[in-house]
Amino acid sequence: MVEENALLAELKERLHDSDFYRWAGIDLVEASPGRVKVAFEAGPRHVNLQGLVHGGMLATLADTAMGLAVRTVLEPGRRHVTVQLGVEFLSPGKAGRIVAEGRTLKIGRQLGFAEADVKDAGGRLLARAHATLSVTTPRS
Amino acid sequence: MVEENALLAELKERLHDSDFYRWAGIDLVEASPGRVKVAFEAGPRHVNLQGLVHGGMLATLADTAMGLAVRTVLEPGRRHVTVQLGVEFLSPGKAGRIVAEGRTLKIGRQLGFAEADVKDAGGRLLARAHATLSVTTPRS
Amino acid sequence: MVEENALLAELKERLHDSDFYRWAGIDLVEASPGRVKVAFEAGPRHVNLQGLVHGGMLATLADTAMGLAVRTVLEPGRRHVTVQLGVEFLSPGKAGRIVAEGRTLKIGRQLGFAEADVKDAGGRLLARAHATLSVTTPRS
Amino acid sequence: MVEENALLAELKERLHDSDFYRWAGIDLVEASPGRVKVAFEAGPRHVNLQGLVHGGMLATLADTAMGLAVRTVLEPGRRHVTVQLGVEFLSPGKAGRIVAEGRTLKIGRQLGFAEADVKDAGGRLLARAHATLSVTTPRS
Repeated sequence: MVEENALLAELKERLHDSDFYRWAGIDLVEASPGRVKVAFEAGPRHVNLQGLVHGGMLATLADTAMGLAVRTVLEPGRRHVTVQLGVEFLSPGKAGRIVAEGRTLKIGRQLGFAEADVKDAGGRLLARAHATLSVTTPRS
Repeated sequence: MVEENALLAELKERLHDSDFYRWAGIDLVEASPGRVKVAFEAGPRHVNLQGLVHGGMLATLADTAMGLAVRTVLEPGRRHVTVQLGVEFLSPGKAGRIVAEGRTLKIGRQLGFAEADVKDAGGRLLARAHATLSVTTPRS
Repeated sequence: MVEENALLAELKERLHDSDFYRWAGIDLVEASPGRVKVAFEAGPRHVNLQGLVHGGMLATLADTAMGLAVRTVLEPGRRHVTVQLGVEFLSPGKAGRIVAEGRTLKIGRQLGFAEADVKDAGGRLLARAHATLSVTTPRS
Repeated sequence: MVEENALLAELKERLHDSDFYRWAGIDLVEASPGRVKVAFEAGPRHVNLQGLVHGGMLATLADTAMGLAVRTVLEPGRRHVTVQLGVEFLSPGKAGRIVAEGRTLKIGRQLGFAEADVKDAGGRLLARAHATLSVTTPRS
């Protein structure tokens, strides 16, 4: 419990210190080792020309959830960088709260693998994503 | 020439009418049938926690370039929706101008396929992307 | 129960009638609506130049499991064709029995989505796969 | 010229020494640094239940072409293993000769990226593929 709260607090601080997440409106919802939920409120500025939430926003949310999920299980000093991202868009998203849950599948010495579900407020699955990440220790 | 200028003007209008593209700072650069270039200026708000341009932004730029490239070869009344997006991140991106060129590979009755290169101002390849799109005529 | 046995029998017959599955050595293990397990015995002819099971074999097994899982929930007369396949190779596979479980994620009017796990005899996850399929009714 | 012939001869030997490639019927066609063509003759045993060449075979051919293309530019002692494979199936393949051309996009210290086109004898594009490969030097 204490550990999960500390983890949550650390990730929240990372997000709050980031211009990108503030700008994109992405917030941390939950975090436990290997599993992280992030959310954003899709408004008029997030929809594409057809009035649906832009796929790039859903991809960004999923990538964030997976990157942070990997972050929770890496030792300090190791970095994580997405090298391959795949997203299947199952249902069109509309304005409102959208949540992505990222989960680690495997963390090796050099590569990590994660997946994510992206759902709307009603729990409908909007997108499925999967990422391959470099999780190396930078050479000093 | 005339046709390409008209195409460019039409796509520019679509982008300018869109809150999403204004918010994301994505501009149209070039357009010819089956090929579209879009660009954005990566600033402090587009970088992730490691100081690199967030992969989601590159994915968004690539998805936009591919969707618009498909748009240029569809008859009026047909819509395009990305159903699968894949991105390989070859090199980390830094602040500055980033350009994505989308190209159609095949447009069928129901499905279209496209690819995109994402490059920085120096011409370095940051990401490669590919998309499968639904290009159906909505039922009335 | 009766229905699942009938489903299993029908899919087994499809596989046995197929030169491809006989040649590849792929057998049906289990089938229920939206979920199918197939297996093959990886021998010397399935390993690549490094002595590991060739990724193409794992991709083939996963694609088969997903295609058949989609098959179980389609009305007669609708066809299924994979249009996009993605595979993450998490661990190297060695000779021995390998099982892929395919699961449907969503079946729409024109597109279906599925995922698969590929595991070795010890239950180790070798690969994760996901597919986008065309599931249309052919025009007469 | 001499170098390319030597490269071709070395790769041919690798393929001929491999049970997998003999079994799958995959032959080397051309090789130059960063670019390799392989082919196979699709016969009755390579088609799926709908009479089309099984997607897994096209994926296998593409993965082989990309792996060998990466091989041509790696120093001896470095190994290559596909960690992520993506394939878009643009047109159904029928029996006959099928060729895949693999090309390297980038080779880094730990990761390599490649793409491939798969075409039939008439030059029609059947599939597009892309791979992320681990290209590390094994620790002794």
